[in-house]
Order: sequence, then C-alpha cells, then structure tokens
Amino acid sequence: MFRSHTCGELRLQNAGKHVTLAGWVQTVRKFGAITFVDLRDRYGITQLVFNEHLNNQLGEQPLGREFVLQIKGTVKERSNKNSVIDTGEIEIDITEFTILNKSAVPPFTIQDDTDGGDDIRMKYRFLDLRRNAVKKNLELRYAVNRSARNYLHENHFMDIETPFLIKSTPEGARDFVVPSRMNQGQFYALPQSPQTFKQLLMVSGYDRYYQIVKCFRDEDLRADRQPEFTQIDCEMSFVEQEDILNMFEELIKRIFLDVKGIHYTDAVERMSWENAMWQYGNDKPDIRFGMKICTLKKPTSVFTEKTDHAGLIADANFVVFDSAETVLAIAVPGGAAYTRKQLDELTEWVKRPQIGMKGLAYIRYNEDGSLKSSIDKFYSEDRLKLIADASGAQKGDIIMILAGTEERTRKATSELRLELGEQLGLRKKDEFKLLWVLDFPLFEYSEDDNRWVARHHPFTSPKPDQIKTMIENNPVIEDASNYLSHPYAQIKANAYDMVLNGNEIGGGSIRIYQRELQEKMFAALGMSEEESVHKFGFLLGAFEYGAPPHGGIAFGFDRLCSILGGSESIRDFIAFPKNNSGRDVMLDAPSSIEETQLKELQIMLRGEK
Amino acid sequence: MFRSHTCGELRLQNAGKHVTLAGWVQTVRKFGAITFVDLRDRYGITQLVFNEHLNNQLGEQPLGREFVLQIKGTVKERSNKNSVIDTGEIEIDITEFTILNKSAVPPFTIQDDTDGGDDIRMKYRFLDLRRNAVKKNLELRYAVNRSARNYLHENHFMDIETPFLIKSTPEGARDFVVPSRMNQGQFYALPQSPQTFKQLLMVSGYDRYYQIVKCFRDEDLRADRQPEFTQIDCEMSFVEQEDILNMFEELIKRIFLDVKGIHYTDAVERMSWENAMWQYGNDKPDIRFGMKICTLKKPTSVFTEKTDHAGLIADANFVVFDSAETVLAIAVPGGAAYTRKQLDELTEWVKRPQIGMKGLAYIRYNEDGSLKSSIDKFYSEDRLKLIADASGAQKGDIIMILAGTEERTRKATSELRLELGEQLGLRKKDEFKLLWVLDFPLFEYSEDDNRWVARHHPFTSPKPDQIKTMIENNPVIEDASNYLSHPYAQIKANAYDMVLNGNEIGGGSIRIYQRELQEKMFAALGMSEEESVHKFGFLLGAFEYGAPPHGGIAFGFDRLCSILGGSESIRDFIAFPKNNSGRDVMLDAPSSIEETQLKELQIMLRGEK
Repeated sequence: MFRSHTCGELRLQNAGKHVTLAGWVQTVRKFGAITFVDLRDRYGITQLVFNEHLNNQLGEQPLGREFVLQIKGTVKERSNKNSVIDTGEIEIDITEFTILNKSAVPPFTIQDDTDGGDDIRMKYRFLDLRRNAVKKNLELRYAVNRSARNYLHENHFMDIETPFLIKSTPEGARDFVVPSRMNQGQFYALPQSPQTFKQLLMVSGYDRYYQIVKCFRDEDLRADRQPEFTQIDCEMSFVEQEDILNMFEELIKRIFLDVKGIHYTDAVERMSWENAMWQYGNDKPDIRFGMKICTLKKPTSVFTEKTDHAGLIADANFVVFDSAETVLAIAVPGGAAYTRKQLDELTEWVKRPQIGMKGLAYIRYNEDGSLKSSIDKFYSEDRLKLIADASGAQKGDIIMILAGTEERTRKATSELRLELGEQLGLRKKDEFKLLWVLDFPLFEYSEDDNRWVARHHPFTSPKPDQIKTMIENNPVIEDASNYLSHPYAQIKANAYDMVLNGNEIGGGSIRIYQRELQEKMFAALGMSEEESVHKFGFLLGAFEYGAPPHGGIAFGFDRLCSILGGSESIRDFIAFPKNNSGRDVMLDAPSSIEETQLKELQIMLRGEK
Repeated sequence: MFRSHTCGELRLQNAGKHVTLAGWVQTVRKFGAITFVDLRDRYGITQLVFNEHLNNQLGEQPLGREFVLQIKGTVKERSNKNSVIDTGEIEIDITEFTILNKSAVPPFTIQDDTDGGDDIRMKYRFLDLRRNAVKKNLELRYAVNRSARNYLHENHFMDIETPFLIKSTPEGARDFVVPSRMNQGQFYALPQSPQTFKQLLMVSGYDRYYQIVKCFRDEDLRADRQPEFTQIDCEMSFVEQEDILNMFEELIKRIFLDVKGIHYTDAVERMSWENAMWQYGNDKPDIRFGMKICTLKKPTSVFTEKTDHAGLIADANFVVFDSAETVLAIAVPGGAAYTRKQLDELTEWVKRPQIGMKGLAYIRYNEDGSLKSSIDKFYSEDRLKLIADASGAQKGDIIMILAGTEERTRKATSELRLELGEQLGLRKKDEFKLLWVLDFPLFEYSEDDNRWVARHHPFTSPKPDQIKTMIENNPVIEDASNYLSHPYAQIKANAYDMVLNGNEIGGGSIRIYQRELQEKMFAALGMSEEESVHKFGFLLGAFEYGAPPHGGIAFGFDRLCSILGGSESIRDFIAFPKNNSGRDVMLDAPSSIEETQLKELQIMLRGEK
C-alpha cells in the first residue's frame, strides 16, 4: 500500500501519528518558506505543510496541480481550523514526499464550477470524473444500486443474468445488431430489454427475478437519451396489479430512505390514465402542484365519459373558441398581478413552434372580485365569473385559455402548466411526489398502417374483464375515420407507470400468459402467424407448458438517479456517456474497422465495390 | 396474490390454518377415491389431498404434470411423514382448486435425472430451468454474486457501470462489432473486458472499482467457452501486488464461507510461474495432490536456473532418452500394483493424438525394495533406484517416464498427472485448494510475426526492478532462433493468477501508469506510434494527467460458480447459454435480419449484388 490512511479519515485524535498518504495535489499555496498543499483522494482532502527543511527539495521537484503525491509525516492540530471539511482540524507536517506521477496542466479546472465546456469535458471525461460534482453523482448511483439490490434480495428476488446476444425482433424501436462470424449472413441483436427472458424465467418457476441491466435502442437521440441505458428490471409470479404496486412503491420508498434519508410515509397517489390526461394534459403529471386543467370544450369522440363546460363559452360569437375543437383553461395562482409584458412573453412562449398555439386568452380575477379579460368583447363579466369558477380560480388568479385541436391543445396546456409551475417555484427540487398512473389504453391507433400498435408492448395483458372483448372481436379496423368506435379502442391495459415529479421512472404490466391471447395480440398488431412464430415462437411454446400468471416492472435507472440527484440530465449520472450523435468522443467511437474484420464477418459497406 | 404461502413454508405448527397455494403439479397419485398431488414452486413441494367430494370435479378437470394450480385448503398433520422435505410433516386438505394454466406433456421429465438429451433440453431451456439441479446452480450463482458484492462493498469498492458500445481495438481476441446507423461505415465493438475503463476510473480517482459484468469474445468456441461471459472485475489504486493478493484471497474465502459454509482458514499457497511449470507442467496446477514432476532431462535454453537429473539417465545407450530434448518422470503412489493391462491402457492414453507421446516408460518400485522397469535393458537396478529417489517415489509406487520435445512432454506429463490423480481419487470434489501463481513472463514470443506478444495484456506492468530493462532495450528480435537470449525474454510481469483445483479462476496485474512505459509496451508489441495513438490515445492521454499506481483482477464468474457447484460445465450455471456454434437454439439466434435493417446500417452481405 502506498498509504496508511486515506485523505478523508484523519481527525484530531490522530494527532502525533506518523502517517503515509497518497493522492492528488488540489492546490499549492506558498507563504514565505512554508508551502501548504491540499491533497485530495476519493475520500476527502487533507492539508499538508512543507516546512523550510523541504524547501530545497520542493525547489528541485516543484509540485503542480493534479500531480500524484505520496507523503510521510505527522498529524498535528491546525492553528487555523477549517470547519467545512471533516479533516479540517488537522494538518500533516511533512517529513518526506515522493512524486508518484506528474500531471500536465489540465485543459479545464477540476472544480465544482469548472471553466470547461461540455465538449472538452466529454473528451477528457477521465478528468471531468475527478470533479466533486460528478463524483457525487456516481456515488449516488451506486447507493441507489445497492439500496435496490438489498430491498429486492430481502423480498426474495434473484438476480439472474439474461443474454446480450439475442435475436432481432424489431417491434417498436430499432435493434442494434451484431454480425455473426460463425453463422455467416446472420445477426444477433442486442436486447432492448430482457422482457421475454424474464417472462421465460417466470414460466421456469423462478418466481421473483431482478436484474440491473444494460439495454440498447438504436433510436435517433433526442436530448438526454442514450443508445445504451440501464434498467432495474423485475418480474414476479402469481401476482395481480395490486401486488406489484405495493412491492415497488416500497422499493422506491426504500431508495428514498437509504439514499436521501427521506422517510416517504405518504400513500402513493394513484390516477387513471384518463384522469391524468384530462386533468394534467399528459400521462406523467407533476403533482407537486395543482393548476389542473379545466376543459371548457372538447370533441365528443375523445374522453367519452367526461363532461366539458362547452355551455360557458358557447353562443358568444367568438369565432376562435367556436371553431376550435378543444378549449382548455388553467387558473394560475396570484396571476392577476401579471404585467402586460409578462403576458406578452407567455403569449410568445405558447406561439413557439415547439408549443404551436396561435395565441393565449386570459381572464384576470382581480383581488376585488372584478374580472377583466382579453376576450371582454365576447364575454360578459358574469360569464367570465362562471368560467373562472369552473377553472377553480380564486381572487387574485389569472385564467389562461388555449384553443385548437384536441391533442395539440392538451399538450400545450400541459406544457404551459409546467412552465408556470417552474416560474412560480412550485416544482421544488427537494420535494418528491410519487404517482401511479393506471388503466392505460392497451392499443394505440397507427394512422400510417391503419392498425393497432401496443401502447406498452405486445406482452401486456388487457384488464381481466376485457380479455373476452379482445378474443371475440376482429382486430381489423374497417372504418379508419371512426377507429375510436372499434371495441379495441376501449380496451384498457393491465399496466402501470410510476411517475416521480413529472417524470416516468418506471413502467410495467401484468403479462399475457395464455398462448391463445398472446396469438390474438400478435394478430391485432398486424403480425402474420408465420411472423409471430418466427419471432416469438419460443415464448408461445413456453406458454403451452404451464405458464403462471405473472407481471413486472422496469425502472429507468439513469433517470431515477438523475431525479434523485436533482439534475435534468441523465448524462451527468453515467460514467462514460455518449453524445447526441451516439459518439463516445473520448474513445472516438464508433470508428472504422479493418477490412479483415469485415471479411471475416462476410459483410461489406454499401457503396463499396 | 394468488397465494397466501409458498409451497416451501408450511410446517406442523401451521396445522389448522386455511391457506391458498399456487404452483406446478409435480406428481398425481390416485388411491381409490383419494388423489394426492405434489405441488411445486421455487421454494419447495407441498403435498395436497383431494378427497372424495372433489372427485367429480377432478374427473371433469383432470390434472396433468406441470399444470399450474391454485388451491385453497387446510393444513393438517400427515399420518405418513416424509422427513426428506421441509414440508414433510403436513399436507393440505383441499377445499377448492383452480387450474390457472394447463400444460402439454413436457418433451422430457422435469426431474434431477431427466431423460432429456442436451439438444432437447437446450431447445426447451425454459423447462430445463425448472429442474432442481439447474435451479440449484442458478441459486448458487446468485449467492456468489451477492457474497462478492457484499464483501467488495464492505471494502469500499464502488460498482461503476462501463459502456458496452465501445471502440474496436483488436489485440488478442476478436471483437464482436456493431454497425452504427448514425455514423455510417463505422462500428462499435462490444467490450472483451472493461480493462481500459477501469484504469481510467483509477486515473479519475475512484480508488476502488468493481463490476459484475458481461464481456464478449468472438472466438471459435472450444468446449465450455461462451461468446458472452461474466467477470467479477475489480481495480484498486495505490496498491502493490501484495495488497491485491490479500484483498482478493479474502474475497474468495468469503465466498466459500457465504456460499458453501466452508471456513477456508489455510494460508493461500503462492508459487512462481516457473515453479508451477517445473513441478506441475502447467501454469494452473491442481495442488490437491502431489505427484510433482521430476525433470530427468531438459534443454539448456529453458528454465535456465533449474537443474535437471540428466546424469541419471545418460550414458546408457538408450536412444529414446538420449535423443529426446526432455525426459520427465512422475511417481504414482501405490502404482507398483498396476497390472500389465492397466499399464497398456495408460500407454495408449498418452499415445492419443490429444496427448501425442510416442510411449510410456515405467519403473516399478516394489514393496520389497526391488525395482523392475520397462527399460531394464538399459538401466541397472542401482540406476533405477537413483531415478526413483530423484522422482520422490516410495516403495509400492510406480515411476512413469515420458520423453520428447520440451513443451509437448511437459504438457503430456501434466495431463498424465491429472488423469492419474483423477483415477486415484485424489481430486476430491469437496476439497478446495487455492493457489496464487506469480511472476509470469511479461512477453511471449510469436513465431509467426517474430515479435513479442503480451502474455497477460498490454497494460500489465513489468516487475518494478525490470522497468529499466524494458525501457533501455530495443524490443526488436534480431536473431529469431535465439529469442530466449533477448533481454525481454527474462522480464517478469507484475501479474498473478488465482487457481482453484487446477482451474484459473482469476487473473490480474499491477498496471503500467506511466505514458513512456506504456508507449514502450505498445512498441514492443509491434504497434506503430500512429496505431497506438489511434487505438489507445485516450489512455496515453490520461496517463499525462496524474495517473496513480494501480492494479486489479478479474474473476471468471461462470467458471468460479461451476467449480463451487462441483460441475465441469459452465453452461450449467448460465440461465440461457449458447451452444458450441454460438447459437441460442431456443431463440434460434443468430438469424437473418430484414433487408431494411441492412440498408439503414449501410452494410450488405458479401456475395450479394
């Protein structure tokens, strides 16, 4: 060992002890004949004192930032104590030192507030990883990993490794593929998730499975997506939805406790997908704050069981509302005080192409009870009052109203709500609110192919009382313009998402475990019998030999860590992330490979002769 | 939940309790109007009793093997207790049952001694996994995983995930590659190990890293190799070899304790690579038994510091020994009693092509002290006695002697020793002997390229006192026939292998952490400066910014589990293994992919137009 102690462990009670430390030079400060050096390692920082007798030696072997240094010396009490760091009461009186390795001047400063831009820090990721901010993130990640494993172990889950070189069954996302040298012309695929394997393990009787495992999707990378990402992947047998919800909200609560010291004792809220869309405009609502959406008007074809307030805005000759498919309102607490400028800015904000609205109407509900609006021309104060009441506004609030097509307007209102929540400080970083979103539609309609696609994945079971609907109806959509009236449109999935502060952190479902139902599902998704057997024959086969009822969930590990760490970016929680083009700029990967490699694999690049 | 208890937990003290169980039908036995069913799940087997009142129902819904059954009933004491299983004192008096899923007749019996051949069991791996023998293996694997993680956590190692989509740097084994769609014409590679990443993490100051991680090698599969395999991968900073040996022999001892209940209190033996080769003929000796090799004769060019017993066999006009490069002997305990037939069989055994010797000479050292040999014509009894003494034989032993070229003869003698050890019952399954093999040569000579190749890998440091030899000498081999006289041939690596019962279970080294030395290493391996920067520029770069001394080890997790489980085959310890052609016969992978996938990746199969 190059050290007797780490740089984080010496205390006042060690005074007088002869110690050997090793670490990196954080700072060098000269005061006349004395030199102070802060020595850093993973565990902390210790102050070193080089006295006069080492002056010559320091002259010959000057120390620089990030040099790797080994020292011997004696622990002594500091005269000038530093209460910020754990070792702040002591320093080391150096008797000898050895420079174990030198360092060039780093291309950016290794500090919390570094001067390095994103690109340079990614290229020199091994230096960026030295920064305390990044180190804390990876420590948090490990703590989450450890906590999850402990909880799952205590609950009889077994970590079972599933293969990485599997079969390509593109369905939804694109597979990464791996050419096989030993089976020429054939390819493995990297798993998008261990879904079918964990289901097979249930068929095999393993009862409770988990894995913290890399998954791969060859998607065009939006901001904050990675081609390889990590899941906490779990599956249980002989369970119903309720059992899964209980088991896994406790997992997340345990992680809160172990990692953040937070006792999350509240019951986890539950909300149907329909209510989430209706009240918040999206399926992963941030419920740290209210400002629920009031639906003034909606088309009859969607949310068929919900009632709007169309009467409040009708018969006023306001062509914008009259011609709009959908009109939605939110009441913004204290918003009556918004200035004209603020309202103009918000109007510009909703008109940005990402939001795509034509404008923003508003009603001020003043503290004195009077109401003034941008649509005074069309609506009397009485009417405004009724709208304000419907939207749940209080005196002092402002009601914002958006109008347009159903999907876009709901999305825009949801975005506006989140933006205003942010501006109003209602999305507190240190507040955590969990939510289960339930009862998703089993299918989504694909206009391109005029067929159903699985909203979750093709292994998700319908609600038990809707299995019959699924089996007994023909999935073919005869009338594309009226797809919502097809019985399949009403089938709800036995599926659940866990949402934390407006982010989906996990999702899963009770699975299909009957061959007949699974075949019907594949058929509903437009797969021929031949295709479904080619792709998933092993699973259909397995269902013939005593498959138990089962279900599971997968958590996005990177995302979970980033939220717990209070960051927007999952990249900050990955040791060696890729950029938005899927490149590792440190390694310079991907890269060209040698012709001999291509030949051995019996493939060639297109455009070659 | 479909159950109130598992099939493994009910005991006599639960008598009278109303319970719900779910599981698989293991056996159905009818006795008149009563039917006994053994219900199985991961946790155990519980006996169910269907009494007369359920007869009709059982008639309408007959139960078959592997049916998934849910029952309600009352726990009662058995009249006929079964002491073999934990639940053997009770049975369940059934009040109602539900068949949750039926099962076709399995293609082989789900029992320890199954009638299923290897191929059918691999195709139906999900059924094979139900067998208790396989389940125990995966449980053991998880126990090893858990134990290793706990030990490493307690010793401040952090699990840090490294990327799977990296850069191809073929060096040694072949990479699996992954075409990049977003960077056309370029490829990722799957990691053969996280070697360079864990070293970067040391440069980044993470101090102690571990990962239980999949690695990939596209090699022609010998028996019991898998294209994807799992390592327990570890790295530490500020350590010397001694620190690593101590840390990781304790890891394995901890695993012995946690998983097998074995207190491994013996000191772990250490042996130089040269002594291992000299005494056992290979670098991973099984030291559960003796029978060390006696070198009667060897060429002067190898094992230069070792002395043979050439005088004992010289000057006897025995052309076989006189013309042989190497003559080796082993004394077999009690072997004097071997029959002529046994000796003929052993002679045939060494003449098999896999062993490749021309014959086997022997000397019987009879209980009465007399000596008789197959080479009596050439050697007097006195000489035979001297040879017997040199080989360490006792009265009652037989000395077996092989002659030929150095490498082949040493290997053959090693194989013969292991075979005889097996036959004599000296390789006991329940005995575990750990061994560190140390001081490997840093380089091996490649005849094909007339250059050095790294015996371990290019990041292994030479012994500290030989760094100078490496830096100061030109690696070029001027005289191929005399490569052993090149200074590099004598350089020893700062590397270590852990051997368990004759299997290498782990290996590692102290790493190079100086740019100059790493560059010299790449040059020694015949890499141009350009090539080394292209492939490993990031690592060379990292070494310029304060790399600490560091080293590590990687254990072959699959192999470790199989040895602890007392099996020859790693495949038995992998949930979904591949066959010797790298195929997953259950999935039928690899397989052809769609033309659209190839087009998107801008690759095509050779032979296509």
